[in-house]
Amino acid sequence: MSNRIILLAHGSSDKRWCETFENLATPTLTAVADSRIAYMELAEPSLDDIVAEGVKDGVHQFTIVPLFLAAGRHLRKDVPAMIEGLEATHGVTIELAPPIGENPQLGEAIKDVVVQQLGANKS
Amino acid sequence: MSNRIILLAHGSSDKRWCETFENLATPTLTAVADSRIAYMELAEPSLDDIVAEGVKDGVHQFTIVPLFLAAGRHLRKDVPAMIEGLEATHGVTIELAPPIGENPQLGEAIKDVVVQQLGANKS
Repeated sequence: MSNRIILLAHGSSDKRWCETFENLATPTLTAVADSRIAYMELAEPSLDDIVAEGVKDGVHQFTIVPLFLAAGRHLRKDVPAMIEGLEATHGVTIELAPPIGENPQLGEAIKDVVVQQLGANKS
Repeated sequence: MSNRIILLAHGSSDKRWCETFENLATPTLTAVADSRIAYMELAEPSLDDIVAEGVKDGVHQFTIVPLFLAAGRHLRKDVPAMIEGLEATHGVTIELAPPIGENPQLGEAIKDVVVQQLGANKS
């Protein structure tokens, strides 16, 4: 059974915010089959939009990968509550993965960015 | 003249939040001389703590690298206002770098994390 990956960003009414997350998501959306981006609030597509679209496509299993550096109230309370509602409404199973910032690769990428910036400033 | 790097995280009263950012910062703090972590609010050390410590050490130039995926109100308004205050109070120069999420390397790291997680789930 296919499993659709949902990259979940916070969302904002500021288009520049969403553009940054769309750029961040692009390599994953390009490399990983059956992956989508969705916003928790204040921007579209919403999580509900993407789950409804999946159901239409015959997908009933989803994994949410939060594009968040750490888990705060949103990931500990709000998103699990949204997931419970979506599972009941759409008859689907949704797994919540840890926020991407909990993976050590992110710390390495941050180091690379800082070192690169320092080099650029020096030249 | 030496320039101190400040990795700026949002901060939270939840220790697990700060631990995640400390883990994210560790590779940079290890690799980059004269780098520190600071929190915008709700956790210590504060930005003021770190700038005051720098002044004590004879440092008068700082670069803030925001450990944020995108620039919202905090980075567009609150942090620039804090910087203005700190420059006036401490007689220092503080440069605000773009949030780490605006660097394409972060998007690549996110892709690697998702691909790795998918592989782990399959095995």
